[in-house]
Amino acid sequence: MNKSIVIKKGFAEDVRFQLKDGSGSDAIHTVPTYAYGVCHLHTDSMLQGVGLAFTLGEGNNLVKDAITYLVKHVEGREINELMADFGTTYKQMVDDPNFRWLGPHKGVVHLALAAVVNACYDLWAKSRAVPLWQLLIELSPEELVNTLDFSYYEDILSREQAIELLRSKSAGREMRKKILDLGYPGYDTSVGWFNYSDEKVADNIRHAMDMGFTAMKLKVGSKDPARDIRRAEMVRNIAGDKATIMFDANQQWNLPQAISICKSLLPLNPYWIEEPTHPDDVYAHVALAEAVPVKLALGEHVPNKILFKNFLQSGCMSFNQVDAVRVGGVSEFILISLLSKKFNIPVVPHVGDMGQIHQHLVLFNHIAMDHPALLLEHIPHLKEAFVNPVEIVNGRYKTPHTPGMSADLK
Amino acid sequence: MNKSIVIKKGFAEDVRFQLKDGSGSDAIHTVPTYAYGVCHLHTDSMLQGVGLAFTLGEGNNLVKDAITYLVKHVEGREINELMADFGTTYKQMVDDPNFRWLGPHKGVVHLALAAVVNACYDLWAKSRAVPLWQLLIELSPEELVNTLDFSYYEDILSREQAIELLRSKSAGREMRKKILDLGYPGYDTSVGWFNYSDEKVADNIRHAMDMGFTAMKLKVGSKDPARDIRRAEMVRNIAGDKATIMFDANQQWNLPQAISICKSLLPLNPYWIEEPTHPDDVYAHVALAEAVPVKLALGEHVPNKILFKNFLQSGCMSFNQVDAVRVGGVSEFILISLLSKKFNIPVVPHVGDMGQIHQHLVLFNHIAMDHPALLLEHIPHLKEAFVNPVEIVNGRYKTPHTPGMSADLK
Repeated sequence: MNKSIVIKKGFAEDVRFQLKDGSGSDAIHTVPTYAYGVCHLHTDSMLQGVGLAFTLGEGNNLVKDAITYLVKHVEGREINELMADFGTTYKQMVDDPNFRWLGPHKGVVHLALAAVVNACYDLWAKSRAVPLWQLLIELSPEELVNTLDFSYYEDILSREQAIELLRSKSAGREMRKKILDLGYPGYDTSVGWFNYSDEKVADNIRHAMDMGFTAMKLKVGSKDPARDIRRAEMVRNIAGDKATIMFDANQQWNLPQAISICKSLLPLNPYWIEEPTHPDDVYAHVALAEAVPVKLALGEHVPNKILFKNFLQSGCMSFNQVDAVRVGGVSEFILISLLSKKFNIPVVPHVGDMGQIHQHLVLFNHIAMDHPALLLEHIPHLKEAFVNPVEIVNGRYKTPHTPGMSADLK
Repeated sequence: MNKSIVIKKGFAEDVRFQLKDGSGSDAIHTVPTYAYGVCHLHTDSMLQGVGLAFTLGEGNNLVKDAITYLVKHVEGREINELMADFGTTYKQMVDDPNFRWLGPHKGVVHLALAAVVNACYDLWAKSRAVPLWQLLIELSPEELVNTLDFSYYEDILSREQAIELLRSKSAGREMRKKILDLGYPGYDTSVGWFNYSDEKVADNIRHAMDMGFTAMKLKVGSKDPARDIRRAEMVRNIAGDKATIMFDANQQWNLPQAISICKSLLPLNPYWIEEPTHPDDVYAHVALAEAVPVKLALGEHVPNKILFKNFLQSGCMSFNQVDAVRVGGVSEFILISLLSKKFNIPVVPHVGDMGQIHQHLVLFNHIAMDHPALLLEHIPHLKEAFVNPVEIVNGRYKTPHTPGMSADLK
């Protein structure tokens, strides 16, 4: 019997962190702030649920205000009873009748939903005194899918098909749990921020390799394609032929530009090219993937399960970068991961949460769904903000054992 | 020489109107409020620009706060100088670096953009003492496209192609100006709100026909498909075979449901079926259009030009319902109308503005782009809120002659 814990009251918070020296900069976000819209769930016990949505600072107050509005859906609810049928509450929140107009299922209201949903999963894991990854892998397939909302997925992934998919992956589970001891492989995003000088990028590559990383990413998408290509060549030269390197354009190219520059980057053997053009433009990504034999990583700004569905159906997505602090939290992340598994597209999340939550989710995806344990992005800039920051050892995430989803902020 | 008018300061307002007796209700919005996030531009003259974004009340304060943030981009600008190159300012607003994260180009931040953009066009028209439709048709093709942002349209509609398209339509302009005297045909949305009883719908159909309307719409999307079909048959029986009738599901069906119910509605010869499923789901609409020979009307909730581009490319859209108080205002509305003309898909706007602004835009679309003058939705519920409410005579919108875009609220 699980302990009864009742959510008494939800609170929203607007927390912002200034970054320094060009950290976090990309082709569009030249002076970034990292920020969280935070949902706190106070209970009748000592436990608190904490859920995050990530923004770049400006307008984070809008997300906070939207959390304040949405959180009423879970106030007064006992956590085990709530999570036993969370898909229903999720649908009530995501389709809150008049609020829904502000999306639907995208932008500020969906970011706020992520924070509320994540706080519920966090509290649920804490109530059982286990880390989120453990909670999730110990749920039965039925218990897990009860936390999901299959609306608009009926044509492609029904509740029954999701249960069947999870059951079919039960065979190798014990073997896949080895990842818990090994640690999940990371890759270093912070070597090549857009505003870093060539010298700083070069130093960072060497430092990342010293730390055990074999995969790293460069921000491209400059107004001057020659700069992109020069820096990309530098990364390949310093990191060597065996290193895994990715290029991230942060949506800065239109389709003709993307085709042209991707052709130039192809000889450098990128593992993927990320966000080449507008994140809503399924047809442009299809045209790019047909024009250039390059693998596309997409999802950082894809707003919801519907557009993920279309991207997966289209065949242009090689890596699925769904982020649980952009889509509607852990619930929608899991649903999208299930669909991605059906299409055999690996999930390699963008980590607006700095990997705090996603370190749990990729362990779950690997163990329960047999998603390959490829790489989890690592961004070190907010280490000091978290009570239990991620730990990287030899380029791998050390498996967390603290109860919850590691989202508590100091 | 146009008179110099400088925008001194922008203000945002949250204005809400309670609707009564089931008016405005649909399958998802059972107790609607109509609301506007309003942008006021105060100038160094007596003139004020007024721009609207439409919501259903809840969270309208978020749109208001986002307007307050975005409007700084136009403060201090002289209106003629601003509008001479408005595409550049539009891009600065739509890509405001960190604020952009909250979309991009969708949801609360994009609604707020609509209000700011619309206020600029309103002030521009007022500064020349002409109604918006007249301002727009008197601009040269180059002046017009200078107000647009072609980002991510380069693969499908360049600035040069847009100018060429407008030039190519100059031949029949004078003849098409007859619409100004005739009035633009309207259709009555308010006959069949979801919560209206069968008797009230029946009375409303007769009343609408007495008023001269030959086209009318019924809200469907009930949990009970039999109710939808029964009421749809009633509308056809009362309105007669010659009436134009449309069914609006407000996104309530998943794909299998949509296919099944659309097949049942087909014998009633609907002019269109509107929003059958999720507004982001291009592939589901394609599958529906392939499965059932029914014309789909889409766009009320389509968030931006990118998804409109994909819907037009997909071939599933028969009527384009872009709404200038949902996408980024008049500027994005015109760009989408140009692309829609390229694909020969008529623009039949959803009127979150109650037709106040769109009565100008459809006149412009018809005269300048040769879009057919089909139908403009009419929703009468806020007539008393506007200084210059739309006038319907014999089922047609009477051409407005007051300077601006008729968006001033009492």
